[in-house]
Amino acid sequence: MPDSIFSKIIRGEVPCHRVYEDRQVLAFLDAFPLSEGHTLVIPKEPAATLDALGDESAAAIGRVLPRICRAVLKATGANAYNLLQNNGGLAHQAVEHVHFHLIPRFESARAGLGTGLGIAWKAGKLDGAAGADLARRIAALV
Amino acid sequence: MPDSIFSKIIRGEVPCHRVYEDRQVLAFLDAFPLSEGHTLVIPKEPAATLDALGDESAAAIGRVLPRICRAVLKATGANAYNLLQNNGGLAHQAVEHVHFHLIPRFESARAGLGTGLGIAWKAGKLDGAAGADLARRIAALV
Repeated sequence: MPDSIFSKIIRGEVPCHRVYEDRQVLAFLDAFPLSEGHTLVIPKEPAATLDALGDESAAAIGRVLPRICRAVLKATGANAYNLLQNNGGLAHQAVEHVHFHLIPRFESARAGLGTGLGIAWKAGKLDGAAGADLARRIAALV
Repeated sequence: MPDSIFSKIIRGEVPCHRVYEDRQVLAFLDAFPLSEGHTLVIPKEPAATLDALGDESAAAIGRVLPRICRAVLKATGANAYNLLQNNGGLAHQAVEHVHFHLIPRFESARAGLGTGLGIAWKAGKLDGAAGADLARRIAALV
């Protein structure tokens, strides 16, 4: 895995506006936020994508996410937010180090920033037989 | 918290195409998928939003996410995906029970479904002084 801007932030070579840190996790404000309070939560383990992350780092991030969410909501006054984690260029990943975007969602723009994440949701309908087959194949691989 | 379709699925009153289950976590195919392999990962703990979820459930979901991601990628052949978790109606939450969408992203439509999550990203620039102040206030609340 190549060194990334997040590795440099973890090592303290690049500054960040830190909101949380423990042995396995670092959280800081996104320098290019979609809304006020847009926070990045990353593992210190150098994994490019979530599927490559070890169990312990993944559990450590999971455990602390609700706490960080509560703090961001309280500090910004937001009461809606999206958590987004992108893997692969096709899926909008820009930095090759696992990161969770915590993005508050507001009714209207504030703090000179946007209202949050824009989502386009073009849902289909799961075919019963295809779903049963795919679920069996995934379940056998978990 | 009101009873939801996911509570019924957890209790086995509504069927699902299950891909993973343990004491704290259930994962199954989304009945209205954005792409092939679109999977929902939910805690059995009845929390409406991620900020309301207990530490142990949150850690259990975090720990198993990479494993479920690997299985979905392998079964579908996808190599890019988004993980999305919506909180609050303004943030596109449709069911009032914490759920993580694992959404494979494809170059072109397949299996009669779409290519995945559409994202609109209107980034601003974090003001240094405002960022320092906000990070301090969030950090004090985590």
